[in-house]
Amino acid sequence: MPTLDQARAWYAGADAVHDFDHIQRVLALAERIARVEGADVEIVRAAVLLHDANGAAPSDGERRAAHHEDSAEFAREVLAGEGWPADRIAAVQHCIRAHRFRGSERPQTLEAQIMFDSDKLDVLGAIGAARTMAYAALAGEPLTGEPSAQFRATLQKEPGEPHTPYHEFLFKLSRVKDRLHTATARAIAAERHQYLSDFFDRLHSEIKGER
Amino acid sequence: MPTLDQARAWYAGADAVHDFDHIQRVLALAERIARVEGADVEIVRAAVLLHDANGAAPSDGERRAAHHEDSAEFAREVLAGEGWPADRIAAVQHCIRAHRFRGSERPQTLEAQIMFDSDKLDVLGAIGAARTMAYAALAGEPLTGEPSAQFRATLQKEPGEPHTPYHEFLFKLSRVKDRLHTATARAIAAERHQYLSDFFDRLHSEIKGER
Repeated sequence: MPTLDQARAWYAGADAVHDFDHIQRVLALAERIARVEGADVEIVRAAVLLHDANGAAPSDGERRAAHHEDSAEFAREVLAGEGWPADRIAAVQHCIRAHRFRGSERPQTLEAQIMFDSDKLDVLGAIGAARTMAYAALAGEPLTGEPSAQFRATLQKEPGEPHTPYHEFLFKLSRVKDRLHTATARAIAAERHQYLSDFFDRLHSEIKGER
Repeated sequence: MPTLDQARAWYAGADAVHDFDHIQRVLALAERIARVEGADVEIVRAAVLLHDANGAAPSDGERRAAHHEDSAEFAREVLAGEGWPADRIAAVQHCIRAHRFRGSERPQTLEAQIMFDSDKLDVLGAIGAARTMAYAALAGEPLTGEPSAQFRATLQKEPGEPHTPYHEFLFKLSRVKDRLHTATARAIAAERHQYLSDFFDRLHSEIKGER
């Protein structure tokens, strides 16, 4: 098993949204869920430590798009170097390849479902608000802005309509709670979802001068 | 009076924390407070539109440190070009020079107090949380992290202790409500302060796995 210090080094160049703090938050959630759900904690732990290890920075769009593939290959090298058996390496690799919201590979095992769910819980709640704002700033997008009526109805932007954190909430974050696999994660998500939804309501009422 | 389109152009290169959306939010607050407090709305409006016009980007530390001086000089050029009388230009310049939390010039006029108060309200509430996270990401600082016991007691960091948004809250944001001048701004600040304080409590309880 990679140590925390080893893993920390893999994320040394990562931005604030995908840094080792993200890994540690996901790890705490994943181990908590794995214990409740009766999963193989070692597979889950290795997958979390390695899941963004290669190409997670969003500033590098092309690498980011394939980072689950790159990280799965990196995981194979690391775990083979530690003498892990092939079937357990493959189990970790499946977790990593299947962790993306829009990915083509779906989580087939309990361990992969827990990897997916834990990673997604870190986009909800106050930490979800924090990461979404940080992501927008790094991407050069505005922090605030009302989605158009068209976007609200169709999730398609009007010409020239900027992408803001509230767009991201309507397009993706608000639907995360309905995409989770384990009952333990869904219970945590319900309250985090409500907090994040209230955060965006409040943000826009402040901007309109209502608060 | 500069038009909104003129002002928008001055902030075209600004980051997400100090962009024209910030100016528009502060403008809405400042005009609302100025009407209630009976201030000269024209002075307040010109000051808000011009207060960050020159050197607001935090990535440029040296210019940022003097941006109130640079913006005050830029304001003189703009308003003199519009034929404003010298005493009203000086009134706007005082608002701009006195708008900083740690600045040496204190707001002496009602208009300067409203400029200061409105700018500071935009660091509280949900928008304050959003901007603080965006600032941290742009500055390469972590989004989360528990301040040390020493920092909580003395506001002095331990060697190697990173600066996080929670540090910024304890060091500066939590004290903003007690630094405001007008009763109207203090009333708005009270609830925004509470929301931001609860946000940081919640953020750290999520990270500790309590939610």
